Amino acid sequence: MINAAMRKLGEERSVIREIFEYGNARKQAVGEKNVFDFSLGNPSVPAPADVNREIVRLVGEMPSVALHGYTSAAGAPDVREAVADYIRAAFGVPMTSDLVYMTCGAAASLTVTLNALCEEGDEFIVIAPYFPEYRVFIERAGGKVVEVPADGAFRLDLAAIERAVTPRTKAILLNSPNNPTGVVYSRGELAALAALLERKNKELQKTVVLISDEPYRELTYGAEVPYLMALYPHTVVCYSFSKSLSLAGERIGYIAVSPQCADARALFAAVCGAGRALGFVCAPALFQRVAAKCLGQSGDLEAYRANRDLLWEALTSFGFSCIPSEGAFYLFMKSPEPDAAAFAERAKKYELLLVPSDSFGVKGYVRISYCVSRETIQNSLPAFAALAKEYGL
Amino acid sequence: MINAAMRKLGEERSVIREIFEYGNARKQAVGEKNVFDFSLGNPSVPAPADVNREIVRLVGEMPSVALHGYTSAAGAPDVREAVADYIRAAFGVPMTSDLVYMTCGAAASLTVTLNALCEEGDEFIVIAPYFPEYRVFIERAGGKVVEVPADGAFRLDLAAIERAVTPRTKAILLNSPNNPTGVVYSRGELAALAALLERKNKELQKTVVLISDEPYRELTYGAEVPYLMALYPHTVVCYSFSKSLSLAGERIGYIAVSPQCADARALFAAVCGAGRALGFVCAPALFQRVAAKCLGQSGDLEAYRANRDLLWEALTSFGFSCIPSEGAFYLFMKSPEPDAAAFAERAKKYELLLVPSDSFGVKGYVRISYCVSRETIQNSLPAFAALAKEYGL
Repeated sequence: MINAAMRKLGEERSVIREIFEYGNARKQAVGEKNVFDFSLGNPSVPAPADVNREIVRLVGEMPSVALHGYTSAAGAPDVREAVADYIRAAFGVPMTSDLVYMTCGAAASLTVTLNALCEEGDEFIVIAPYFPEYRVFIERAGGKVVEVPADGAFRLDLAAIERAVTPRTKAILLNSPNNPTGVVYSRGELAALAALLERKNKELQKTVVLISDEPYRELTYGAEVPYLMALYPHTVVCYSFSKSLSLAGERIGYIAVSPQCADARALFAAVCGAGRALGFVCAPALFQRVAAKCLGQSGDLEAYRANRDLLWEALTSFGFSCIPSEGAFYLFMKSPEPDAAAFAERAKKYELLLVPSDSFGVKGYVRISYCVSRETIQNSLPAFAALAKEYGL
Repeated sequence: MINAAMRKLGEERSVIREIFEYGNARKQAVGEKNVFDFSLGNPSVPAPADVNREIVRLVGEMPSVALHGYTSAAGAPDVREAVADYIRAAFGVPMTSDLVYMTCGAAASLTVTLNALCEEGDEFIVIAPYFPEYRVFIERAGGKVVEVPADGAFRLDLAAIERAVTPRTKAILLNSPNNPTGVVYSRGELAALAALLERKNKELQKTVVLISDEPYRELTYGAEVPYLMALYPHTVVCYSFSKSLSLAGERIGYIAVSPQCADARALFAAVCGAGRALGFVCAPALFQRVAAKCLGQSGDLEAYRANRDLLWEALTSFGFSCIPSEGAFYLFMKSPEPDAAAFAERAKKYELLLVPSDSFGVKGYVRISYCVSRETIQNSLPAFAALAKEYGL
């Protein structure tokens, strides 16, 4: 009597959530301080002070009916204006508020965009390793996932992307700063990708869309995060305030369709239609207004940077091989044995909870989320050292 | 390059939203006070005082990371416990927290449930007139809508429902108190429906699910709203706090799967899977906690009752025919000409914005949302009187 695919998705959970729940059980068993849970990308720094200040101000000043009632489906007009103003000012692109659609966070930004775009037989290119839910979202929207491996340094492999673009390619899904690698794509890389796509569009007489999944935009440690809309016209930005404002549970983000996108207005209508069909109605009203007041802000990035430095230096000194992350809050570490799941399993003996890379579409790595307390990292170091020793590093 | 069905949904908007937007334009043109907008079901009374009090308390007392971070996908454990406790105490059914799934409001409760249930070829019975988005949600989940007209008094037509149940029937979608009629189904009606379904289940060797869409549960003026779970085992309650707590914009509700439902645990897993596939992640964290503290509360029901009485008495005194609503905040009024859309169009001359019943699946009525200020109703009465006169009532 039940949809089997949905049941399977619910029973399997994501690997990340699975480890997170295991961690909670271990914490109950051996004490919170003795478990080193690096599984989840849940921000570990408080929201900027303006967030709670703005919540209290709105609740005190705005009439309840206006504050907590429905907004327009695409968002409150003044909020959409504020987002468009911010995008214009920060990135120099001619964004207008009528192409901004407020969403219930990054996942909603993606599912709404994918459902708006996807027609039967459509292919969506993802760069492996990639956030595992991409596959869930693309397949439920009716699309086919086409995995293109990143190059050896986890940067864009343009030749491989070019080979993967076919007449059935609807879009390429990019994520920079990247989850799980922490890589930030350079302006040169992205400009080359844009040129490649413009060439393929002409050759195939079609329009490949770039979907830019940007929950980590503000989380960088110096690297520039070029704005894709400024480099390629057919761009849809899927944004979330979850990580920048440490509001992951509040579900607030937006979709911005580039005014230069082919059929931008029709695509925006399809975004509204998809939001309606999936049951979103409108993005949470209070947090729409809070987010609009905190555009461009972020939590304490220095805390994340310090975590990264402490962990990266320790891990490499123990003999592990780890690419230095330029953004987001993940380290992508090479597994000292080919089977990353076996390695992650062995790490559990030391109460180290790492996510094997298999579900991200590559083998042989683990993702380490360093959005944890400094103390957790410090206390975990002897465990990592012992684990390295076990592998003779 | 765009999904045509989604584009159409976005461009058409719902008839209700269309009228609402027209009303906003008219208000700009002729002044807010001169437009009588009865289109939208946006609560017009403030949230109970506990709502804003609880928001400020949580923001002041709970650490930001814990308050605003991800909850488990199904909801914060203590919130799910509170909801299950409330259901047990209020309705005498053996609800458990592991069958409670917190959602982003009523629409999400429905789309998640429908996607969890729907397999290819499934039919979903709706009682006409019905909330127009039911069709959008059912069709996007892959199901077929089967309309069964209510009887002449807009109550359940059990013989018609019995004829409509086939081996392909997955579920019946009930909504009581009803949008758009304001009818509340009686215990006798619902018990008879349950008996009918038990009989059909045996006859067809299958399980028909009852989906109880309950955003108006607390909004009644004396009528009992029996709890379907207590009458029929295979029940899924789709609840929302939007109307009871006047939080329509904040997107908070829940799904409760009856512990007595066939395959309850597998269905709950499918609910979790569907929530994941549609992009919901978790329900808004702050409002999960706020709702848990305000279970069973509601805004000022007396204000709605006074609105209903004032409007119903005036309309019937003008010669209109209107069923007296027992719940929700809608009056369903007979159009004095057969074409309700033509009537609604003529009402616009008097700046009266009414929703024709066609999109609800029946002809010849208009829905009048009386969740507006008392003043709006009072000021609208001369317009209704003039409209009645135009029809020679």
